[in-house]
Amino acid sequence: MPNISRKAVRMPESPIRKLAPYAEQAKALGKTVFHLNIGQPDIETPSVALDAIKNMDRTVIEYSHSAGFQSYRDRLAVYYRGIGIDVSSEDIIITTGGSEALTFGFMATCDPDDEVIIPEPFYANYNGFAVSAGLNVVPVTASIEDGFALPPVEEIEKKITDKTKAIVICNPGNPTGYLYSQEELEKLREIVLKHDVFLFADEVYREFCYDGAKPFSVMNLKGIENNVIMIDSVSKRYSMCGARIGALVSKNADVMSSVLKFGQARLSPPTVDQIAAEAALDTPQSYFDEVVEEYVERRNIMVEGLNNIPGVFCPKPSGAFYCVARFPVDSTENFCQWLLEEFDHEGDTVMMAPASGFYSSEGKGSDEARIAYVLNKEALRKAVVCLEEALKVYPGRTSSFISADS
Amino acid sequence: MPNISRKAVRMPESPIRKLAPYAEQAKALGKTVFHLNIGQPDIETPSVALDAIKNMDRTVIEYSHSAGFQSYRDRLAVYYRGIGIDVSSEDIIITTGGSEALTFGFMATCDPDDEVIIPEPFYANYNGFAVSAGLNVVPVTASIEDGFALPPVEEIEKKITDKTKAIVICNPGNPTGYLYSQEELEKLREIVLKHDVFLFADEVYREFCYDGAKPFSVMNLKGIENNVIMIDSVSKRYSMCGARIGALVSKNADVMSSVLKFGQARLSPPTVDQIAAEAALDTPQSYFDEVVEEYVERRNIMVEGLNNIPGVFCPKPSGAFYCVARFPVDSTENFCQWLLEEFDHEGDTVMMAPASGFYSSEGKGSDEARIAYVLNKEALRKAVVCLEEALKVYPGRTSSFISADS
Repeated sequence: MPNISRKAVRMPESPIRKLAPYAEQAKALGKTVFHLNIGQPDIETPSVALDAIKNMDRTVIEYSHSAGFQSYRDRLAVYYRGIGIDVSSEDIIITTGGSEALTFGFMATCDPDDEVIIPEPFYANYNGFAVSAGLNVVPVTASIEDGFALPPVEEIEKKITDKTKAIVICNPGNPTGYLYSQEELEKLREIVLKHDVFLFADEVYREFCYDGAKPFSVMNLKGIENNVIMIDSVSKRYSMCGARIGALVSKNADVMSSVLKFGQARLSPPTVDQIAAEAALDTPQSYFDEVVEEYVERRNIMVEGLNNIPGVFCPKPSGAFYCVARFPVDSTENFCQWLLEEFDHEGDTVMMAPASGFYSSEGKGSDEARIAYVLNKEALRKAVVCLEEALKVYPGRTSSFISADS
Repeated sequence: MPNISRKAVRMPESPIRKLAPYAEQAKALGKTVFHLNIGQPDIETPSVALDAIKNMDRTVIEYSHSAGFQSYRDRLAVYYRGIGIDVSSEDIIITTGGSEALTFGFMATCDPDDEVIIPEPFYANYNGFAVSAGLNVVPVTASIEDGFALPPVEEIEKKITDKTKAIVICNPGNPTGYLYSQEELEKLREIVLKHDVFLFADEVYREFCYDGAKPFSVMNLKGIENNVIMIDSVSKRYSMCGARIGALVSKNADVMSSVLKFGQARLSPPTVDQIAAEAALDTPQSYFDEVVEEYVERRNIMVEGLNNIPGVFCPKPSGAFYCVARFPVDSTENFCQWLLEEFDHEGDTVMMAPASGFYSSEGKGSDEARIAYVLNKEALRKAVVCLEEALKVYPGRTSSFISADS
């Protein structure tokens, strides 16, 4: 029997999905599991998108162009210009989710053993895309005490070697919910310009900014137009994660023609889903206003709830729908598994994603977990109660501080 | 401005799609272009699949499981058992098209600089998947005179080195239309067993076998169950290329758990399309009977038509809907471009895929082209006339034999 590849051995399991068997066991035992582990919103997909699917009048579900339907690329360019990002359809290639956009972007710019610098904690699947492309992630650790702000420029520059090909950010951030300021992004611009590396920015959460904060796109950083590659997706914006429609956006013509070659090899992104994504561009602003209002309330329930639990600390995010919290436990790997295997509070328990999978540095984030506040408010309140009760009895609790009523 | 990767430079352009700008110019000039270059059938998608999309009652288009919906995997296993392939849902991972299945398969089994042996001409995008995974294609040339039968075993064994990780076949074949006999596959089995390499078989055209020929699946080769990886797709079977739903099928548990990790990184295959693919399993046999009858007639028109053109030779395929023909020209790269740029017959011209892109050996196939007979019979008859007229006047014609009426 032949061996699998070394690449397959290196490929990380998803920290978001690997506890799934324990969740299934818990459900089989009759427990209610609140899924805070995965960014699958319960928000309805806009009706314009659903209607476009139902009313599709094609009799053959054909391939589209490898770069995506021209009509969709044209309209997507209009959407970007409407939010102040000056691009044309030539600067856009439609991909099968943001995942494929980043994979193609890595393949087009980096060779095996090249390095990409990423502030950690970062979206765990970046590790998977890096392994697929054969390149090495070099982390720069952001601090939970600073709310996961951009690490100091000198810390980033220290990591640059002659193998560094790119810096990767996610803004607003998954898993941290941190929104980089224009000032922070201008600092990144200087590094990118000085060392002439690529700058990837995953901006799929841009519609989810709170408390009056406004996202600033890397596409608007001056003088590094040929270095910048923006990753986008309809998954979160329109709550259509299962559509698998994303985009890679760049002014760099060499990058675009290279990415198109990778796109040609896989033929095309899905057709029906592109039709839905194009229709979704007609989603009224009121949809987003309501969604943002809902997420602010959810965030407040979750973050305030967590910070009220003795020994727990959670910085307040201003974007996306995640937060990373620190728990007074031996290991969140153990704690999250224990929550599913051993614990329930009145039949309820909670599934979270241990944060270690969002760090590249060995051992970092072992007492942190990522929480997606994508459930309704009632469920989130119950989830907070669960966590509070769980920490009263979890055998691996480390903090000496025990709440008054325990 | 930073450089693109060496991998991006190596990545081939699609030979199927790279002449597209010339086709667009031809159409802009008012010409009718018969697209024989791409395997996009005009056959209607089964109504059960289209209805499943139109009647979808979900209000949130959510992710599916990374391995695909369990219900779809269960029903797909039933389909395989119905055609004599004994698998369970555990042996199936749903992918975003056959393209992703092969890419994940390569990633899970091969490391950079490993070698995969492929009889050529082969589906051009295998080159792209190989470049993406960083591995090297080692071709074994099949002969047009033999109708592209499996090259002799000793020719294949000669290519095996300590870097060989897999042999890849497509059966029935794209681009050749050749259907390997059980006897040929048993010979491959011996090589696979002796050298303990993986055997990938792309069997996406199995429903398209003609003249009473029956496909034999590699899944039924005894004693190499852990070596075999079957690639499948709904694209051609149900004429739903744009759905981008495929599958990787294997009894090798290590391969399956590795492929799942690559699958987790990209989250899930598209949801609506899986619903359509699952519904497509209810397509009645009469649909396939009609489609096969139609393709046989189309094949006969095309292959007989080609062989009636002086200087042209085209073996008669017994599967898929492609053929590879040899033309009496300096180069089919030039000829195919000239057909679009310089030629028309009563306003009609033809787009074919030069076969050189389907060979890995430099210079091979330069006087061959791949033809997909996926258009209606009237269009195919006109396309044959076009080619006959074109060869009378093409400046790069090489054969001294000129037809009587020129």
